[in-house]
Amino acid sequence: MTIRPATIEDWPLIWPIFDATVQAGETYAFPLDLTIETSRGWWMETPPGRTVVLEEDGHQGGRILGTAKMGPNRPGHGDHIGTASFMVAPEARGRGVGRALAEHVVQWHRDEGYRGIQFNAVVETNVAAVRLWQDLGFEILGTVPGAFRSPEHGYVGLHVMFLSLV
Amino acid sequence: MTIRPATIEDWPLIWPIFDATVQAGETYAFPLDLTIETSRGWWMETPPGRTVVLEEDGHQGGRILGTAKMGPNRPGHGDHIGTASFMVAPEARGRGVGRALAEHVVQWHRDEGYRGIQFNAVVETNVAAVRLWQDLGFEILGTVPGAFRSPEHGYVGLHVMFLSLV
Repeated sequence: MTIRPATIEDWPLIWPIFDATVQAGETYAFPLDLTIETSRGWWMETPPGRTVVLEEDGHQGGRILGTAKMGPNRPGHGDHIGTASFMVAPEARGRGVGRALAEHVVQWHRDEGYRGIQFNAVVETNVAAVRLWQDLGFEILGTVPGAFRSPEHGYVGLHVMFLSLV
Repeated sequence: MTIRPATIEDWPLIWPIFDATVQAGETYAFPLDLTIETSRGWWMETPPGRTVVLEEDGHQGGRILGTAKMGPNRPGHGDHIGTASFMVAPEARGRGVGRALAEHVVQWHRDEGYRGIQFNAVVETNVAAVRLWQDLGFEILGTVPGAFRSPEHGYVGLHVMFLSLV
């Protein structure tokens, strides 16, 4: 598996992963009426942020199994703390794609000199993601009760998670 | 004092308050290079959100002493929780402008059927704002350590605050 910066040419291959994730509706509070055009700005970051793809290696080459975006969580006097999001193709679950992207994200923030990484809204029933981030050292700073409408679980909390890099 | 929806014609009178607040740099993580043009989208909300101004009554009429914006904190499956920001003109501090705007904001969310109000980033050294929101029933759910660079205090925390409306 290779992780590399995404280009605008990758978007048509990233979009099915984005769309499947948003339509499943269990992990992100994105608008529900996004199209391949209107969703691009929600995922494809510009500097100082960036978006990457994880590609499967091999002779077929280039199949995109996952994607992540990262960058400053806030502008101005908050831009020393980063944030990130990632999505894994439904057919690639359980193969370590999420973990590889998560480790990449943490290393990128270290390399760029960020003082910490904050996640603003990790759905508490997204147990795989919560555990993965906790494995990498993130802690839950607080949980906003009932802040997410899960199609499966109803009103569930959104965790604020944080990793200090200083 | 009267609170009413802001119109686009109000923006030149709101901008000095916005600019003074952002340039002071102690309370909001907004970009530091905003102009009267580029900052408008950071403050003037569109439905389902809205922006209001607080005007001084009297025969002179119409002096804007403060402004607030409010609306859903997240789109999609998170849009049942609101958020808000407010700014008070430097020369109008200590006259209850912030409290009047805060009470207005809470009532608006109640009237609109929101299930709660979340503040994502209340600077912990902004003691007046923290106390005001606590007076209105908000609690601190967690604090992101060092997430804000205060010109006066250095790295300080950002509180996540919440008021349940159900």
